Amino acid sequence: MNKTVRLSTPNDMPRVLELIKELATFEKEPDAVIVTPEILVEEGFGKDPLFTCFVAEVEDEIVGMALVYDRFSTWKGRSIHLEDLIVKEKMRGSGIGKELYTRVIKYASERKVKRIEWAVLNWNTNAIKFYERSGAKVMKDWYIAQMDEDGIKNYLKKNENI
Amino acid sequence: MNKTVRLSTPNDMPRVLELIKELATFEKEPDAVIVTPEILVEEGFGKDPLFTCFVAEVEDEIVGMALVYDRFSTWKGRSIHLEDLIVKEKMRGSGIGKELYTRVIKYASERKVKRIEWAVLNWNTNAIKFYERSGAKVMKDWYIAQMDEDGIKNYLKKNENI
Repeated sequence: MNKTVRLSTPNDMPRVLELIKELATFEKEPDAVIVTPEILVEEGFGKDPLFTCFVAEVEDEIVGMALVYDRFSTWKGRSIHLEDLIVKEKMRGSGIGKELYTRVIKYASERKVKRIEWAVLNWNTNAIKFYERSGAKVMKDWYIAQMDEDGIKNYLKKNENI
Repeated sequence: MNKTVRLSTPNDMPRVLELIKELATFEKEPDAVIVTPEILVEEGFGKDPLFTCFVAEVEDEIVGMALVYDRFSTWKGRSIHLEDLIVKEKMRGSGIGKELYTRVIKYASERKVKRIEWAVLNWNTNAIKFYERSGAKVMKDWYIAQMDEDGIKNYLKKNENI
């Protein structure tokens, strides 16, 4: 099996989006994805790219992706965030996920960051075990908070006087 | 009381670091902060800044800060992360936290991002209530995973062949 992991190009973005949608379905939110291939190209390959994306290919077909970007920890300093690591369902168990994960960790090491951070669903026990065995710490005492566009608009309307 | 919220300057970083250390103590990890004022200046005010920091002043003393940076959601698109929002202990309850929070939400709105995200400790019920009342969604089904510098080094040593 001819496997490679490489940096993505703008041309890969339609296929990368298919993988993103596949993951959203796995995470039980198939309609939550509003990103388009054009947005991925614009935000990832413009003059101030917001992310770096790796793709895994088998026999010239993209079967996995990992998307990362810089963050800043006020405790540790420069770090990277692993936003998504996705392997096409049929290819799971083939070692491709581990190759992408290793590529991300090499990227972190090359950039000399202090930390890699990501989120994992608490019912995804296979992923949690994999991450813990690999040397990551899975922290169970944090919640993730989000305010979406409507939330932002409503908040500012209610708090005009501040 | 003469209160202002403004963008920080490099000169504010020593005081900002004191607030970061105060929060680390509140979160029961006083020794976890390895960042220095020099690192904050370098990463926040160089040619490719990693973050934007706001400070709150009362009678010319910095009593609070909020630190944010760009992220990218593969579902929603451009977003911002609120890494820290800190108010000096003696000034809590004075409305300064809400002013900083509002400044961050305005910043998000000005930049037309799709989402603001942050993390909150699950025992910090006052903060959770405040966020929920403000229109944020606090998600309880995610864990945060982290691999630190030693973890990165050890992983790559064990997986040299990948």
